[in-house]
Amino acid sequence: MTIPCFPKNVVLIAGGVGGARMAEGLARALSPGSLTVIANVGDDEQFYGMHVSPDIDTLIYTLSNRIDRKQGWGVADDGVRALGVLDTLGAPVWMKLGDADFGLHIWRSWRLAQGATLSDITEEAARRLGASARVLPATDDELKTKIRTDDGWLDFQQWFVGRRCEPRVHELRYQGASAARASPAAVAAIAAAELIVFAPSNPLLSLEPIIAVDGIRNALATARATRIGISPLIGGKAVKGPLARLMADLGLTACAESVAKRYAGLLQAFVVDSSDGAQADSLRKTGLAVLETDILMRDPADAERLAAEVLGWGAANLANDNIRSRS
Amino acid sequence: MTIPCFPKNVVLIAGGVGGARMAEGLARALSPGSLTVIANVGDDEQFYGMHVSPDIDTLIYTLSNRIDRKQGWGVADDGVRALGVLDTLGAPVWMKLGDADFGLHIWRSWRLAQGATLSDITEEAARRLGASARVLPATDDELKTKIRTDDGWLDFQQWFVGRRCEPRVHELRYQGASAARASPAAVAAIAAAELIVFAPSNPLLSLEPIIAVDGIRNALATARATRIGISPLIGGKAVKGPLARLMADLGLTACAESVAKRYAGLLQAFVVDSSDGAQADSLRKTGLAVLETDILMRDPADAERLAAEVLGWGAANLANDNIRSRS
Repeated sequence: MTIPCFPKNVVLIAGGVGGARMAEGLARALSPGSLTVIANVGDDEQFYGMHVSPDIDTLIYTLSNRIDRKQGWGVADDGVRALGVLDTLGAPVWMKLGDADFGLHIWRSWRLAQGATLSDITEEAARRLGASARVLPATDDELKTKIRTDDGWLDFQQWFVGRRCEPRVHELRYQGASAARASPAAVAAIAAAELIVFAPSNPLLSLEPIIAVDGIRNALATARATRIGISPLIGGKAVKGPLARLMADLGLTACAESVAKRYAGLLQAFVVDSSDGAQADSLRKTGLAVLETDILMRDPADAERLAAEVLGWGAANLANDNIRSRS
Repeated sequence: MTIPCFPKNVVLIAGGVGGARMAEGLARALSPGSLTVIANVGDDEQFYGMHVSPDIDTLIYTLSNRIDRKQGWGVADDGVRALGVLDTLGAPVWMKLGDADFGLHIWRSWRLAQGATLSDITEEAARRLGASARVLPATDDELKTKIRTDDGWLDFQQWFVGRRCEPRVHELRYQGASAARASPAAVAAIAAAELIVFAPSNPLLSLEPIIAVDGIRNALATARATRIGISPLIGGKAVKGPLARLMADLGLTACAESVAKRYAGLLQAFVVDSSDGAQADSLRKTGLAVLETDILMRDPADAERLAAEVLGWGAANLANDNIRSRS
């Protein structure tokens, strides 16, 4: 068995926890400097006048090994002194922001107020905090995922954290997406990529707010790179988070095929779990190349194993054009 | 010996550490709800776009028993996780802001951005954090102590913290003082007071920026209350801080009489240390009533002892009008 020649420029389209795990696996499998992660900003929110970017933060914390691995977000062993004082002062504290975490939010908000772009800030934060990949937002403009529920329209964080995903969902909107300009650095990274991976993130809440930005969608659709999606579902169940529930609420079938459909026109290949053979067959009928493998990422080593498999498969198919001919 | 009947409305004009110690002593000696502290804001500074009020914070932390007693400022046992991240991100971190401390700065900055006044914010923070006295800023407007040094004009915190008071001082300015409107709540507290105490704070850096606000100076000059100053110097030396050095730099003699002169027209009485008998004699010749006692506040019990002595002396003289007739 030969060691596959992995691509030098890989882009990962990613949301929070699942995206961060995939990002870490890819960063471990690839040569340093090969990976750029383009992150969802639909979950971004203002807290106490500060700009918090939960998905970007989860990516940076994971890629710099600062992440609280038990909960999947936040900084490991972080304190809650600042939040405790805010609580005593009567401020709402349902968003669990840690002390080290606040350091990043303070810095980001300060830099934004000085006129820096979210792209520059995110890239610099990732670099300075020692992340093993470049991280960029999909857009520097405001884009907010809004959720129409039994209790009316809610912001993502209100529904996800504040209400623990309880209110039934009727509709999603990516407010600001149509006017949002794609991050120029993200567009350049997509254009330069040899391989683009759609992370096993929640399509509705994490990846669609990214591809709802026309500039990103167009860059992806016209990219020279092979584009491979990875299913966030195994046997119709999400590894983490409210995806299956959310798809049911919206009248969608919770299965890999249903997820792949959300990315129609953007992918040439899809990766499903070995246990989802029927899904693999259905996906092949839609014209996608399909890899069946163990897609559960139990730990960083597991994520690296999955990443290497996907990269190897992508590289092999890049070489013989098996995938590209299907697009 | 009868227990003196202490006044019900006392105002303390105060700076940071020395002012906070005096405030704590007075709060312990007086009935709850009797004390209002009017604080210096000349040291206020923006850090990472956040509004930090060092003297107000030291007062609130001391009065709520949160203070780091060893250093005299900051929250006891506070973390430095946020500052550590800011350092890693390349931000200047010479101002040692702790994690719990950041909670207050975040809240204050958020409330200011929402349009609340510094007076309302300060009063609410003191109340919610459990301070044993009301705390108010001298003004809600911007007022900045500027220091002309061998190295040019510096902001107070740049000189005091950033440069450790090293550059020789040639001139002080309270920038914005002439345009600053006095805090209406502070003016009302002065008008309602039966006794006003000038804390043993640095006159040049802590109390003069307060009385440089016309509305505060006028309220003090016309107050019905007896006004008593306490020397920040013992034997020509400051208990803490750069006062003696600063007075020498500015060609002033570092002695109680020299300090009292800074408050000319505002005081009827002055308290000096028992060891400063010659100073007491000189001060009496200027028409001030003088109390000689142990003015060193070694701990909160000591501060309470000094406060009770000053209050008892003030109350006795209030009763027989000994002091008031001198004004």
